[in-house]
Amino acid sequence: MTRMDLNADLGESFGRWTLGDDAAMLAIVTSANVACGFHAGDPTVLLQCCERAAAHDVRIGAQVGYRDLAGFGRRFIDVAPADLEADVLYQLGALDGLARAADSRVSYLKPHGALYNTVVHHRAQAAAVVAAVRRYDASLPVLGLPGSALLELADAAGLRTVREAFADRAYTPMGTLVPRAEPGAVLHDPDEIARRVVGLARDHTLTAVDGTVLTVDADSVCVHGDSPGAVAIATAVRTALVAAGLAVAAFTQPAPGRS
Amino acid sequence: MTRMDLNADLGESFGRWTLGDDAAMLAIVTSANVACGFHAGDPTVLLQCCERAAAHDVRIGAQVGYRDLAGFGRRFIDVAPADLEADVLYQLGALDGLARAADSRVSYLKPHGALYNTVVHHRAQAAAVVAAVRRYDASLPVLGLPGSALLELADAAGLRTVREAFADRAYTPMGTLVPRAEPGAVLHDPDEIARRVVGLARDHTLTAVDGTVLTVDADSVCVHGDSPGAVAIATAVRTALVAAGLAVAAFTQPAPGRS
Amino acid sequence: MTRMDLNADLGESFGRWTLGDDAAMLAIVTSANVACGFHAGDPTVLLQCCERAAAHDVRIGAQVGYRDLAGFGRRFIDVAPADLEADVLYQLGALDGLARAADSRVSYLKPHGALYNTVVHHRAQAAAVVAAVRRYDASLPVLGLPGSALLELADAAGLRTVREAFADRAYTPMGTLVPRAEPGAVLHDPDEIARRVVGLARDHTLTAVDGTVLTVDADSVCVHGDSPGAVAIATAVRTALVAAGLAVAAFTQPAPGRS
Amino acid sequence: MTRMDLNADLGESFGRWTLGDDAAMLAIVTSANVACGFHAGDPTVLLQCCERAAAHDVRIGAQVGYRDLAGFGRRFIDVAPADLEADVLYQLGALDGLARAADSRVSYLKPHGALYNTVVHHRAQAAAVVAAVRRYDASLPVLGLPGSALLELADAAGLRTVREAFADRAYTPMGTLVPRAEPGAVLHDPDEIARRVVGLARDHTLTAVDGTVLTVDADSVCVHGDSPGAVAIATAVRTALVAAGLAVAAFTQPAPGRS
Repeated sequence: MTRMDLNADLGESFGRWTLGDDAAMLAIVTSANVACGFHAGDPTVLLQCCERAAAHDVRIGAQVGYRDLAGFGRRFIDVAPADLEADVLYQLGALDGLARAADSRVSYLKPHGALYNTVVHHRAQAAAVVAAVRRYDASLPVLGLPGSALLELADAAGLRTVREAFADRAYTPMGTLVPRAEPGAVLHDPDEIARRVVGLARDHTLTAVDGTVLTVDADSVCVHGDSPGAVAIATAVRTALVAAGLAVAAFTQPAPGRS
Repeated sequence: MTRMDLNADLGESFGRWTLGDDAAMLAIVTSANVACGFHAGDPTVLLQCCERAAAHDVRIGAQVGYRDLAGFGRRFIDVAPADLEADVLYQLGALDGLARAADSRVSYLKPHGALYNTVVHHRAQAAAVVAAVRRYDASLPVLGLPGSALLELADAAGLRTVREAFADRAYTPMGTLVPRAEPGAVLHDPDEIARRVVGLARDHTLTAVDGTVLTVDADSVCVHGDSPGAVAIATAVRTALVAAGLAVAAFTQPAPGRS
Repeated sequence: MTRMDLNADLGESFGRWTLGDDAAMLAIVTSANVACGFHAGDPTVLLQCCERAAAHDVRIGAQVGYRDLAGFGRRFIDVAPADLEADVLYQLGALDGLARAADSRVSYLKPHGALYNTVVHHRAQAAAVVAAVRRYDASLPVLGLPGSALLELADAAGLRTVREAFADRAYTPMGTLVPRAEPGAVLHDPDEIARRVVGLARDHTLTAVDGTVLTVDADSVCVHGDSPGAVAIATAVRTALVAAGLAVAAFTQPAPGRS
Repeated sequence: MTRMDLNADLGESFGRWTLGDDAAMLAIVTSANVACGFHAGDPTVLLQCCERAAAHDVRIGAQVGYRDLAGFGRRFIDVAPADLEADVLYQLGALDGLARAADSRVSYLKPHGALYNTVVHHRAQAAAVVAAVRRYDASLPVLGLPGSALLELADAAGLRTVREAFADRAYTPMGTLVPRAEPGAVLHDPDEIARRVVGLARDHTLTAVDGTVLTVDADSVCVHGDSPGAVAIATAVRTALVAAGLAVAAFTQPAPGRS
C-alpha cells in the first residue's frame, strides 16, 4: 500500500512568544520537525512539544538551525564547518535529551530555514551536518531536498536519506521551488493543495507552474505549521490521502527506548 | 585504600574568549565539570573538552547553569521550577550528545555558580534539578555541597549523591565556606592547599579559620581551573595525595558505550 | 482641565515572533513604553514602533528590563547595581538612537516586568536605575508605582516622577495590586475598566476588591497592549475619558530635536 | 605638520571573559573603536572603556558588528539591509549613551570583523551602514578600507570618510591585504611595524610582500589590541612617529557636550 509521511515544523515558540498551534498539528502529522533552541524553541516549549508528539505517536525530528534567534535561522551564516558540526551535535543531543525525558527520542534530522537552503549546494556545510549525524547516531535518517548536496553526501556516508516535497509550494518546470518572493510561490487553497499531495503520493507527479507534469519521488510532504490556515490545510491533506486509500505513516519505526 | 576524586570546572571558554587551561587541567583531575552552553562553553569548545577528557580517561560531568552568558551564571535568576527542569534536561542532553560524539558520555551532574549556591537552600529549584536528572538518567550521580537541599532531595529521590569539599577555600567553625568577599576566603599557597586536601582525604578533617578541626566527609575535592595558579595548585594537590599513598580516582566507573 | 496619560507596553515583538498590535495601540495611547531589546524588541521592530509613535505624536518611553529574552524580563535577576546601571544606560541610548532616527526621542523611562516589581522595594537596584537616568539625561521623568523605592529615590535625586495606576488590575484595600495568581486580579470588562479609569482621573479614587474606596493619585494609567482584548479596552478607556470631559494627554511635552 | 591617527579595537571583553588590555592601549592610541555589544562588549565593559577613553582624551568610535557573540562578529551573516540599518542604529545609540554618561560621545563609526570585510564589496549592506550613520548623525565620519564600497557610498551620501591602513598586515602588490591564512600575512616585529607606519605617515608609502613600493594615503592606522604583543607594538609605533617628528593625533576634534 502506498504511504506518505506528513511533516511539519513545530516547537517554534520561544518564551513569551507563541508561534503555530503545535497541539492541533500533532494530531495530524506523522513526523514533527522540532526546533532545537538555536533558531527557536526554549527548553520548556520543546519538552512540551516532545511530550505531545510522544502522546500522539508522532516521530520527533531534530530541526537544527543556525544560531540566530533574531533572524529565526532564516539568514545564511558563514559558519566554519567544524563549528557547524559541533552546533548540530549540540542541538541533536539537547533535543534528544528532552525527547527521552518524554519517553521518545530523536528519530531523524532536518535542517531549518537558511541552513536547509544552504546545504542544497554548499558542500562544506552539508558535509558538516552529515558528519554530526554520523557521530551522533549513524542510524538517524536525514530529511532534505531531493538532489541536494545534503542528501548526496548523507547517502555516500551510509546514512538513510528521506526525500521531501512541499505541499503548499509551486514548482518550476525544472522541478525546483518557485522562490517565495515571486507571485504564486505559495499555495493557499486547501483543496488544491490536498489534490496535489494525493497526486504526488499516488502517481509521483506534481504539476509545475507552466502546466508541465513533473515526476517527483518523495517520502515525506512538508505542511507548514505556522501560517494562518496551517491546520485547515494539514487536515485537508490528511483527509484526502486517507480518502484516496493511501496510508499516512511515518517513514521511521517507533524508537525503542534508548538507554 | 583511601581514594579521592579531583574535580574542576572546565569548558568555560566561549567563541573568541578563552578561559582556563583545559588541556593542562585534564592531565591532573579525574572528573571534569564541563559547562553546557548556558553560562559558558560554545559547542566547539565543549566538543574539544569532551574529546580531551575522553583521551585522558577523565569523567565528564554536566555543569548546568542559569541561562546567563553575560553574568557567567553567577547571578541568581528566579526561574520557575518547571522551566529550570527543562533547562537542565536541555543542557544535560546537549553535553551528552557531544560527549558521546567523543566516545564518552555524561557521568554526573554538578550545578554551576549561582545555581550551585541557590540549591543549597532553595528547595523548589533543587527539586527541579533532581527531577531533571531522574528523567534523564536515574543512574547519574549528583555532585554538591554536603548538607544542601540538592543532595538531600537527590538522595530522597534515589539518586546517588557525591559530597564535595573545596581545596582552596577557608571554612568557618560551622563547616560552611567563608564568603568570598571576606579576607582569607580563598587560599593561594599550593603547599598549604595540598596539605589540607591530604588531611581531608586521609583523616576526614579540615582546619577552620579559627583553628577548629572540622570533620568533613567528602568524596570529591574541587580545584579551580581558571585562576592564575590553577595548574600549579592542582598539580601540588595530586602530587601530595599520591605521595601520601592515597588513590586519586574518579568516583564513577568509566561509562559504557550508551547507544 | 483634568488630564490623564494613557501608557502601554509596546515594541515587544522579536524577529519572527509578533506580540501585540502596536499600530492599533499607538492610535489610542499617549505614551508608549517601548521595549529596548533586553527582554523584547529587535532593532527593526523598535525602529518601526518609534516611527509609528512619532507619526501619532505619542511620547516614547524607554521600557528597560533585565537581560532575559527567554524569560521576557519577568524573572528577577540578582544583577549587581553597577552592572544594572550600565545595562540601563545601554538600553536608554539604544532606544534613543532609534527614536532620534524617527525624528523623536526618548521622553521618559519605565522599568519592565520583574525589574518594575523589584524596584518597588529593592533599593540597590532602584538606585542603579535612578543613577542611570541621571547620567543619561536628568530631565527624563521616571514612571513607576506610587510609594515605590524607585520613585522615592528618583525624587530625592531631583528627577521628575510620574505615578502610575493600572486600568485592568484589581486593588487590595491597602492600595496594592492583587497578585496576578489570585482570582479576580485582572479585569476584562472594557466598560468596567473604563468607568474605573474615569473615576481615577476625575475623583482620584479606585474601588478595592472589598468595596473600599481608595484615594489614588495617578498621572498615568497603564492599559495592556498584548492581551486579547487590549485594543477594545484601550479604546473604551479613551472614549470614556473624552466623554467625561477629561483630557487624554501625555505628561511630557513633545521632545525638541536633540542634536 | 604631518599627522597620523592610531586606532585600535577595544571594549571587547564580555562578562567573565577578558580580552585585550584596554587600559594600556588607551594610553597609546588616539581613537578607540569600541565594541557595541553585538559581537563583544557588555554594558559594564563598554562604560568603563568609554570612561577610560574620555580620561585619556581618546576619541570613541562605534565599532558596530553582526549580532553574533558566539562568532565574535567574524562570520558573514546575510542580514537584510533594513535590519542591518536598524541594528547599526541600535548599536550607535547604545554606545553613544554610555559615551555621554562618560562625558564624551561617539565621534565616528567603524564596522567590525566580517561586516568590515563585507562592506568592502557588498553594496547593499554598505548602503545600510551609511543610511544608519546619516540618520543618526550626519556629521559622524566613517572609518574604512580605501576603495571600499562603504567609503564610496559614504562619500556619495555626504559623510566624511577616513581611510585606514593596517600597521601589522602585509600588503599585496595590488595594495590589498594578504589574506590572514597565508604565511607572512601578519607582522610581529615591533621595530619593522613601526618603520612601516613612519613611512606610511611621512611618505605615503608601504612596501608590499614582493618589494613593490605602494602609494597608500591613510588617515588612520590600525594597531591591534588583543594580540600578545599588542601593547609593545603600539608603543613602538607611537614612539617612532614622535621620534620622526610626526604628530600622533585623532582625525576628529573633541566632541562638544551633546545634551
